[in-house]
Amino acid sequence: MKIVDLNSDLGESFGAYQIGQDEKILELISSANIACGYHAGDHNVMAKTVKLAAEKDVSIGAHPGFPDLLGFGRREIQTSPEDIYHFVVYQISALKGFCQINHVPLIHVKPHGALFNMAAKDPVMAEAIATAVYDTDPSLVLFGLSGSELIKAGLKAGLTVANEVFADRTYQPDGTLTPRTKSNAMIHDPLLAVEQVISIVKTGKVQAVDGSIVPLKADTICVHGDSPNALLFVEQLRDLLMKEGIQIKPVASLK
Amino acid sequence: MKIVDLNSDLGESFGAYQIGQDEKILELISSANIACGYHAGDHNVMAKTVKLAAEKDVSIGAHPGFPDLLGFGRREIQTSPEDIYHFVVYQISALKGFCQINHVPLIHVKPHGALFNMAAKDPVMAEAIATAVYDTDPSLVLFGLSGSELIKAGLKAGLTVANEVFADRTYQPDGTLTPRTKSNAMIHDPLLAVEQVISIVKTGKVQAVDGSIVPLKADTICVHGDSPNALLFVEQLRDLLMKEGIQIKPVASLK
Amino acid sequence: MKIVDLNSDLGESFGAYQIGQDEKILELISSANIACGYHAGDHNVMAKTVKLAAEKDVSIGAHPGFPDLLGFGRREIQTSPEDIYHFVVYQISALKGFCQINHVPLIHVKPHGALFNMAAKDPVMAEAIATAVYDTDPSLVLFGLSGSELIKAGLKAGLTVANEVFADRTYQPDGTLTPRTKSNAMIHDPLLAVEQVISIVKTGKVQAVDGSIVPLKADTICVHGDSPNALLFVEQLRDLLMKEGIQIKPVASLK
Amino acid sequence: MKIVDLNSDLGESFGAYQIGQDEKILELISSANIACGYHAGDHNVMAKTVKLAAEKDVSIGAHPGFPDLLGFGRREIQTSPEDIYHFVVYQISALKGFCQINHVPLIHVKPHGALFNMAAKDPVMAEAIATAVYDTDPSLVLFGLSGSELIKAGLKAGLTVANEVFADRTYQPDGTLTPRTKSNAMIHDPLLAVEQVISIVKTGKVQAVDGSIVPLKADTICVHGDSPNALLFVEQLRDLLMKEGIQIKPVASLK
Repeated sequence: MKIVDLNSDLGESFGAYQIGQDEKILELISSANIACGYHAGDHNVMAKTVKLAAEKDVSIGAHPGFPDLLGFGRREIQTSPEDIYHFVVYQISALKGFCQINHVPLIHVKPHGALFNMAAKDPVMAEAIATAVYDTDPSLVLFGLSGSELIKAGLKAGLTVANEVFADRTYQPDGTLTPRTKSNAMIHDPLLAVEQVISIVKTGKVQAVDGSIVPLKADTICVHGDSPNALLFVEQLRDLLMKEGIQIKPVASLK
Repeated sequence: MKIVDLNSDLGESFGAYQIGQDEKILELISSANIACGYHAGDHNVMAKTVKLAAEKDVSIGAHPGFPDLLGFGRREIQTSPEDIYHFVVYQISALKGFCQINHVPLIHVKPHGALFNMAAKDPVMAEAIATAVYDTDPSLVLFGLSGSELIKAGLKAGLTVANEVFADRTYQPDGTLTPRTKSNAMIHDPLLAVEQVISIVKTGKVQAVDGSIVPLKADTICVHGDSPNALLFVEQLRDLLMKEGIQIKPVASLK
Repeated sequence: MKIVDLNSDLGESFGAYQIGQDEKILELISSANIACGYHAGDHNVMAKTVKLAAEKDVSIGAHPGFPDLLGFGRREIQTSPEDIYHFVVYQISALKGFCQINHVPLIHVKPHGALFNMAAKDPVMAEAIATAVYDTDPSLVLFGLSGSELIKAGLKAGLTVANEVFADRTYQPDGTLTPRTKSNAMIHDPLLAVEQVISIVKTGKVQAVDGSIVPLKADTICVHGDSPNALLFVEQLRDLLMKEGIQIKPVASLK
Repeated sequence: MKIVDLNSDLGESFGAYQIGQDEKILELISSANIACGYHAGDHNVMAKTVKLAAEKDVSIGAHPGFPDLLGFGRREIQTSPEDIYHFVVYQISALKGFCQINHVPLIHVKPHGALFNMAAKDPVMAEAIATAVYDTDPSLVLFGLSGSELIKAGLKAGLTVANEVFADRTYQPDGTLTPRTKSNAMIHDPLLAVEQVISIVKTGKVQAVDGSIVPLKADTICVHGDSPNALLFVEQLRDLLMKEGIQIKPVASLK
């Protein structure tokens, strides 16, 4: 029986600033990536979000990012592997504290934004992140772009990994995402997006933009809950996955 | 046999900013209170300082403070007990991560600056801190001003506590510190300061400014390493404590 | 002919975080208090908001606050008059730069949140703010709570001042606001709130909670645009003010 | 008669963190580049440093940098020209406020660290900075690496520019600095460094690492005051410049 995880970024509010619809998306996903106070989130938001995820029985992960609230962690910052290693240790550990006070386990780690994208391509950054995760807790599952350098580094470090796919992005013949600068990068029709995801999950393959069929592992699907449309899309995706007999389960089952 | 702990605040550098003489003071103390990135310190400084303390076999504690780098955590910020509870959980947990990657235990928690002073007098803040420490890890030792509200809250929460005394401050007949606004608040002569500390450790009592003798528990003594004179004073204090047959040991032995 | 100013806090978004409905409220007010990057706002938001206010012909003011993004400037921070003087100079001057590049004048200064409230009662803080405003630019108009210490300090410093009143708050026999801790602090009925404001503007007096009539100067009214209801209220207030023959004009006319 | 300016980065302390020897270096230089609170400095440090420079009759400039206190503005941050334009306007204007309250003019602007280096090579960033400086105040002098894109952009924007040279760096045949990654990038002998600078100032040419002679404009020389050795070097440089009949004057004389 096929299984897939649905993950979403949560806990991105900060002080008086509210962002996202955490309560609603938590009803639909199996894994929550919770911001750790560097690119978004603060200690109060983290506490509230971990508690909420625990109550809804959603699997909890740390979502570390660059120390850049102004840029929401979406900007590349030139830094050393040591710096990355240290700030990943810091952020995972801080979030783990809120799991501890809520008596729930921390299950996974998914880097955020520019950190996620850079680690997908740069083996040195990928290794810094993977080692930080392993050294903090070797039982954590590392999320990375399917087939990316981060996935390779995670495996090499001895971690369980989760290959992430995107519902609304097209793929190149080599299995990488079509860059957003290309006109055909996005799948705008929600139905086509759902179909692609289901096909990837069922077959382990995707049809690239040139029509060729390429292998693509899909352990977890990234979804968003920041608009009513986004929520509606996730509901449709859930329904169709279940109709196809695909179970939605957190990545703990990967181990 | 009498035992006392010598503690000092460490890891207060930030980015390019260097402060303190951590390597030197680590040779002289038994417990290091390491800043956690809110009032001072950053993830790189924390990593370096925990590693250094581990190498020197100095007992490691978290030193959480207000989120106020500009004010170095010395300014009171009007906030809620929930906020304090959450930021103490956050900071202790972040530091614990660096203990984890260095395979050393986190032993104690000492609030910093304005947080320490406010918690000494305000039972609500004291309870927020003590509960945060207990919930994060009930085996941690809580440092507080000797006989203060924080010590009471720690005991009530079920924690082992360490009563802290100051070498260079005078005491009131009720066992509180003479406020710094009074001319006789400080003991400027290092020898008199050392004598007072030794007397407190040996007898469990201190002579107040009015000449009366009042009880004062001394589990740990706060010392500074931010100047050559400060280091010299700690050396003298160590020598005289040992001559008096008082052992210098971390607070883990309190449990 | 009676004249009154309508002011509102704007430019409080930060990075990816959106707050307020600046475009809509700008259609209804005569003065915009624009956040300066300390408690809210950032350089991009400031640039955008000043440009928008300039296009809508709304009078522009600086809205300096405590350096506390996490607390949105609503928390008291224990600090010195020198520190306050310096951060007010800094924030006004930064905002003035965006007026300069848009070729519009900076007209007024209104302290934000905890800074506004503390300066209403504390003559030392009030003087620090008033002097900072005067030294930065003596032609600026200082906004303060009607009859407060800040208004007194502004006059003493040689500034033009604008007495601010609130539509939805009740007043004490001594002309101060009823503290929010009292059950009768707020006027919940929008119609009653509008009536009170119009009465204050027309008569220079307000009926206090004990029924007595006390003098109250009203140069400017603080309104909010953070919800559809809030916008609707401002529209009603505008309509009724105009029906009563009261002109809505920026405070520049006070000079 | 030959004239040259000596400039140094000042006001880089932050809160409790002290850096540099501002009082001492101010005795030796003609232009101070004062940090503006983004990569270093805070409103109190800015106030103190501007006052000190004014008292010593040293010409004052703004020293804007990336918003990155942790990285001291030395790390490249991926961002847009609009963002750069806005944060340069913000920082210059903030510093101008402290000139205003001290009744001294703001004379120049020198970008800091990664911003300076990126603007030397990237014409888009250079234009964003030059336009920000011009729009804030067209009478400001823009400092840039001699012959760099920033100098070109400054001229194009209509600004007076100051070509900056380094005493302790070697040059390539095309007039650019030898990258720090090369072993011959630095001139370690202070006497040779002084000789090179004097030769550049006197002849408008420099001997490149391959022995060729290339033109190099020198309006201002960057010096450091962060160590006793650094101060000694500046003293030697001053003495020898004066012996050679070269006057040390601020860049205002360029206009």
